Amino acid sequence: MLPRVYLAGPDVFLPEAAARAEALKLICCRHGLTGVSPLEALAGEPDAPALSEAARIHRRNEAHMRGCAALIANLTPFRGPSADVGTAYEIGFMRALGRPVFGYATTARRFAARTVAFLGAAAVLDAAGKWRDAEGMLIEDFGLFDNLMLDCAIADSGGSLVVADADEARWTDLALFEQCVRAAARSLGSQTNVDSIPT
Amino acid sequence: MLPRVYLAGPDVFLPEAAARAEALKLICCRHGLTGVSPLEALAGEPDAPALSEAARIHRRNEAHMRGCAALIANLTPFRGPSADVGTAYEIGFMRALGRPVFGYATTARRFAARTVAFLGAAAVLDAAGKWRDAEGMLIEDFGLFDNLMLDCAIADSGGSLVVADADEARWTDLALFEQCVRAAARSLGSQTNVDSIPT
Repeated sequence: MLPRVYLAGPDVFLPEAAARAEALKLICCRHGLTGVSPLEALAGEPDAPALSEAARIHRRNEAHMRGCAALIANLTPFRGPSADVGTAYEIGFMRALGRPVFGYATTARRFAARTVAFLGAAAVLDAAGKWRDAEGMLIEDFGLFDNLMLDCAIADSGGSLVVADADEARWTDLALFEQCVRAAARSLGSQTNVDSIPT
Repeated sequence: MLPRVYLAGPDVFLPEAAARAEALKLICCRHGLTGVSPLEALAGEPDAPALSEAARIHRRNEAHMRGCAALIANLTPFRGPSADVGTAYEIGFMRALGRPVFGYATTARRFAARTVAFLGAAAVLDAAGKWRDAEGMLIEDFGLFDNLMLDCAIADSGGSLVVADADEARWTDLALFEQCVRAAARSLGSQTNVDSIPT
């Protein structure tokens, strides 16, 4: 059985979410991994009519994660300077289970620069030379890609982060995802299913 | 020994972060809990000069969480419609460890309404009557407070969520936090340290 990897990200909100999930799963398969989308049903999922749709999605996603050997997260900033909070939640969840987390994003811009740009005129330098927002709250600047908990979790978990500018295809790019899958497959010791994979 | 609770939230970015942490810890103490701030040193923390500051903070916070019986999260929206991603990460982490998560926020406005307001003219209703952003991405609307993974994690963990409008004191309000602490103390079976606690 191929190692299973959970595909986290706000991709589930795309108009073509199902097609996107299939494209990601195909790439996983080519690299010897089984991609598990948050959209798919759980094998043997009990019928729970008493649960709300939100509660069913939540339980299914946690069950999917428990059944996966690793997580691949789309960290492309979502409606603000940071990654989607559902994705951040899932990274923390898998990290606590001790499983490797891999991340990719279609911008190379660092967290501090993104936050300053997001805040615009509200971002100000304080007397100590640190950026703060209009409420005086510090803009985290460790030269990382996002909040330190995300970057450091990926590093500590044995995973890796792939980021590059792909502004024309912010939510549809597959090349960075494939780089990330390649790293996950190596880490999980998978055999690829293709003779030659474009580098 | 009093049960330990980890105090997650973007409060660490406040100009008066240390004073805020002390105020929160005092409230915890009054309710028979030991509040653990992300800002505080780890007892017996090994000197790790080779690590970056970010990596040291990350490892310390994960160790703090592993040593806590529950998590109390400030979910007040932070630079966008959702909670801080570092906080979302920590909720996922504690949830995977099977520990209860409690949340509070100083706005009662729901996630969908906040997101539509954040997007402004970019939010549009599609033919099916669902809100989408300028990229066509769905605006999640389950009538919840934030992304369903956060709300449902809190509910499934045995925790609870306390939200109310406190716009004048978005980051300094203590009353909602105290309500949250009271719920955590009940859940953890703590004896309060005060004769009478204001309701």
